[in-house]
Amino acid sequence: MRDPVPGGSPAAAGTFPLLAYRASGLGLPPKERLRGCRSPSSLSPELRGSVTVPSRFWFRCGMALPRLLPRALLPLARPGCGRALHRAGSASAAPDFNSFVARTNTCGELRSAHVGQEVTLYGWIQYQRQGLFLVLRDFQGLTQIIIPQDEAHSHLKELLSNAPVESVVRVTGVVSPRPPGQENPKMPTGDIEVKAETAEILNSCKKLPFEIKDFIKKSEALRMQYRYLDLRSFQLQYNLRLRSRVVMRMREYLCNLHGFVDVETPTLFKRTPGGAKEFLVPSREAGKFYCLPQSPQQFKQLLMVGGLDRYFQVARCYRDEGSRPDRQPEFTQIVDISDFLRRSDIQFVQNALSSPRGTVRAIRIPQGARYLKKKDLESLKESAKSQFDQEIMDVICRPDGSLKSLLTKFLGEKQQSELIQGLNIEVDDVVLLTAGEHEQVCSALGSLRLKSADLLEAAGLALRDPAALHFLWVVDFPLFLPKEDNPMELESAHHPFTAPHPSDASLLYSDPTKVRSQHYDLVLNGSEVGGGSIRIHSAEQQRFVLEKVLKEDSEVLSHLLQALESGAPPHGGIALGLDRLISVIVDAPSIRDVIAFPKSFRGRDLMGNAPDYVTPEELEPYHIQVSWPLVEKEAEKS
Amino acid sequence: MRDPVPGGSPAAAGTFPLLAYRASGLGLPPKERLRGCRSPSSLSPELRGSVTVPSRFWFRCGMALPRLLPRALLPLARPGCGRALHRAGSASAAPDFNSFVARTNTCGELRSAHVGQEVTLYGWIQYQRQGLFLVLRDFQGLTQIIIPQDEAHSHLKELLSNAPVESVVRVTGVVSPRPPGQENPKMPTGDIEVKAETAEILNSCKKLPFEIKDFIKKSEALRMQYRYLDLRSFQLQYNLRLRSRVVMRMREYLCNLHGFVDVETPTLFKRTPGGAKEFLVPSREAGKFYCLPQSPQQFKQLLMVGGLDRYFQVARCYRDEGSRPDRQPEFTQIVDISDFLRRSDIQFVQNALSSPRGTVRAIRIPQGARYLKKKDLESLKESAKSQFDQEIMDVICRPDGSLKSLLTKFLGEKQQSELIQGLNIEVDDVVLLTAGEHEQVCSALGSLRLKSADLLEAAGLALRDPAALHFLWVVDFPLFLPKEDNPMELESAHHPFTAPHPSDASLLYSDPTKVRSQHYDLVLNGSEVGGGSIRIHSAEQQRFVLEKVLKEDSEVLSHLLQALESGAPPHGGIALGLDRLISVIVDAPSIRDVIAFPKSFRGRDLMGNAPDYVTPEELEPYHIQVSWPLVEKEAEKS
Repeated sequence: MRDPVPGGSPAAAGTFPLLAYRASGLGLPPKERLRGCRSPSSLSPELRGSVTVPSRFWFRCGMALPRLLPRALLPLARPGCGRALHRAGSASAAPDFNSFVARTNTCGELRSAHVGQEVTLYGWIQYQRQGLFLVLRDFQGLTQIIIPQDEAHSHLKELLSNAPVESVVRVTGVVSPRPPGQENPKMPTGDIEVKAETAEILNSCKKLPFEIKDFIKKSEALRMQYRYLDLRSFQLQYNLRLRSRVVMRMREYLCNLHGFVDVETPTLFKRTPGGAKEFLVPSREAGKFYCLPQSPQQFKQLLMVGGLDRYFQVARCYRDEGSRPDRQPEFTQIVDISDFLRRSDIQFVQNALSSPRGTVRAIRIPQGARYLKKKDLESLKESAKSQFDQEIMDVICRPDGSLKSLLTKFLGEKQQSELIQGLNIEVDDVVLLTAGEHEQVCSALGSLRLKSADLLEAAGLALRDPAALHFLWVVDFPLFLPKEDNPMELESAHHPFTAPHPSDASLLYSDPTKVRSQHYDLVLNGSEVGGGSIRIHSAEQQRFVLEKVLKEDSEVLSHLLQALESGAPPHGGIALGLDRLISVIVDAPSIRDVIAFPKSFRGRDLMGNAPDYVTPEELEPYHIQVSWPLVEKEAEKS
Repeated sequence: MRDPVPGGSPAAAGTFPLLAYRASGLGLPPKERLRGCRSPSSLSPELRGSVTVPSRFWFRCGMALPRLLPRALLPLARPGCGRALHRAGSASAAPDFNSFVARTNTCGELRSAHVGQEVTLYGWIQYQRQGLFLVLRDFQGLTQIIIPQDEAHSHLKELLSNAPVESVVRVTGVVSPRPPGQENPKMPTGDIEVKAETAEILNSCKKLPFEIKDFIKKSEALRMQYRYLDLRSFQLQYNLRLRSRVVMRMREYLCNLHGFVDVETPTLFKRTPGGAKEFLVPSREAGKFYCLPQSPQQFKQLLMVGGLDRYFQVARCYRDEGSRPDRQPEFTQIVDISDFLRRSDIQFVQNALSSPRGTVRAIRIPQGARYLKKKDLESLKESAKSQFDQEIMDVICRPDGSLKSLLTKFLGEKQQSELIQGLNIEVDDVVLLTAGEHEQVCSALGSLRLKSADLLEAAGLALRDPAALHFLWVVDFPLFLPKEDNPMELESAHHPFTAPHPSDASLLYSDPTKVRSQHYDLVLNGSEVGGGSIRIHSAEQQRFVLEKVLKEDSEVLSHLLQALESGAPPHGGIALGLDRLISVIVDAPSIRDVIAFPKSFRGRDLMGNAPDYVTPEELEPYHIQVSWPLVEKEAEKS
């Protein structure tokens, strides 16, 4: 059966490494691994001058650029990531956190070596016990403060004993060793305590909606509403500070080592025709609007035309996704066993294969029979049924090498041994098999692959190293895809500015569906963290793609075409999604955990209650009025 | 006469150093200089924890922070600024501009030491002469390429001779010394040339609207329309690359040396009540709008409450100034001579002093009698008359020390000598004097001060070092000012979150008009490049300021007040206007010269033609419609 989409299955080519990667512990064939890891650097050896970067961190320069980023990120092993960053940073000394401020030390800094020193600390009261001691907290850590009990310090004792938790205080005192046996090895400052001499309450704290302790569970809504309190947690402090340093390292790599130029591009620009996801910004000229660009797309290219070789930018990308939840498409490479089973009489297999996009595929779970219980297998099957409407058949390889499955009665011995060979089945392996429409089969098995990995790990099998950072390039995407609603017409797989693979350039004119693109994606631990492309720099080729292949009106892009005719150098680049990238690095469950003030998935700001109503008078200068749905309905009635 | 505004004249205190600085060569009294230079670091010695930054580059930390910035900028002497930056940068080696690309060298790199090497250059054809040689250009410089004339290279000669200027080409060849006598010492690569062996036209250039040569004059409108061509000029390349490195240096200083955290704050937020200059962004919920914040104001404070000590950000600030041209208020300190002349019978002086804000002021132009011609003085007087409706009287100090002026007949000898003493008049000095309403007098003299300096410099007197960077702090602003439309009520001089001077805190409750603020401005070579303040951290004090002093409804700021009650540390900060700062550093006539894609002063993008019309259908998802002025008028008629 010929795949309906030339140039390889787009679903597999486009997204398989997302899961192939993550599931590599489950035995991905070495060939597939190699394919996924191929760098795009070999694609266009004669390119020069400039390069482009799906979301926040953009840069452009020479064509082999995409290789550089993983290198810049590699020092960031997840545990102790901060330390590694620090060692790898360009500043040889540690930053001075006590410059420009009145403290002598942070609350995470004091050790036995400081014993005898008079220090001044500023922080929040983490807790206070019976007027005897309190624990002071800042972004660096905790320090135990001893409240003096003698008469001469009665005022100090009263002050500190009565201060509410989370009040901001200054404490000056002498660093002392903790009494023998009272050291706290779990606390970096656990060998010492500070005997308070003087103190001052700088700001007293009212009762808070929740305690600032990482182990206290609070609802997501409460955390978002009181984000400024949640930010005090060590986890969020760590995430945001790490993010800052990771971005700084990228900047140092690009600017200092490789001469890239940080250029700010405008965020108020012209609306892209059909840019349905753009935010509009009314201007003070009646009827005229700016838009917030989804990406600095055109500006990046114009900078290249303008000779700003080696550009980068940490840019905001505005995508008005409305209430659509974050798409998280789950596809996977698996083994296609359609051909094995085509000759069998199994009804559901034949049903599936009779449809044009039908397939039979399987995944192998090594050691599944040893580590997965019967109820685990049942839950896997149920989830495939409920989430993807796919029936799953399991095949278990017994200790004697024979297969145990409902399937075996339909398969001869030769076919069984072919299956064993084809899937590399070993003793104690479990194979999960399903038949149906291509994308549904892939989605179901992709999901099962991840779930099996979770189950195997829960059962004690170490599959994935949580500290490891694995990068992967995805290349050789098709340049064009048949339109979903009209497969006889073509649309760009990514966008119309992506250049064709140099070896396929002539196919553009004869059989555009066969052209591979110079688009590439970067995947980190199974998450797509970036993507980019080499761009078309020839006005003639760009016009051909727009007019002849895509049948679009090239007039709306006339200024871009004019720029390409003005001596545009060959160029390309990549963009990294910083939120996603940092959340993978710190292994956070959500990108909200690496953003200081995140919005809810409906775009709401739960703290400040944005968006909000604006009065008609306030709208006047912008020459707009609200079309209330109700008003419209009433107008229709009358 | 008592100044109507307590705490010093606000115009003088607030802005005089802007001009006082620029005009310091004209003999600003030493006391005034000291006053202007005072650092705000002494204002609140017990502060800790956090600080805030007026436009683009924000940071917050301990209170003395404002002192740090000039230190970070000092290595940037204007000429050779790039080199100084480079030496001062944290990366010890020069950036590698040839990584990830196919060139071996940039077009500005080759020297005699490279003679004999085979090199590959990529660049734009700057010009080509008679098929003999061409000059190749990239962002780093120019290199002369020799076109071979022998038969074997006839194809190469044809290719290069026929390529239009500004085409993008690759040239591979051998570096050779220029024939003796043909070296070009003005060109960094002027000792060598490259004998082309192979070449390739990567993109041919159509005819351009103007030549890419810095000495070619082109209209501002054309430059803006074809910004991507203008960007190829060495001057814009230099400005944008320098900007990138200055910002990088600031980041290194803040992040690596002082442990600041780079935090991105949201750009889609809730509208500030009365925020008339904000851009609105319609959401997909009918009637609800986001706004683009004028500054990360509230978020900065919330980060401090959240314990994110030492925050900074390079942020976009959205101010919808509509078609109002850039305000460039010009005020100046001068010498107030009202008291000298109060006893005189001069009619225009008495007229001026009879009004409540009337004053008589003068500026001294040292050596003015030697360097300024009669027509210069006349033009100064005319400009004051035409621009500010102020009559100027001049006083010239003759070589014998006597005064020559229309004024002298109204002044006794004692008064004349008092005037000489009071103004420190020396032989050959010129004094320009005017009387009238305070602000108008200051504006007129401020303008005259600058114009005189220009005239003196044009006459050959070296007053200002164009390469010097002089920083100046402005402090002790009043916290409140009488409202312009109702002087019995008070408004904030800057914003209601600025903290009072600690020594004046009790005056807040007894006589708020006397309270000095902890606001400070940073001035570089006469331009205000930054400003900031120590903020109010006590909810009680903030509520008092809002409700009792400003008579405002504190309810709209309830979430800020609640945050202050939750253990807000004392904090403050500063913001630098990057566009302004960089334009002063590179001595550019306009901030447009340090922005890659600037908008016109009416907010238009001349290249992409934004803002632009949007169809009613496209507005539907945003639940808005355009209120056409014409439609409204017709509606009124019917």
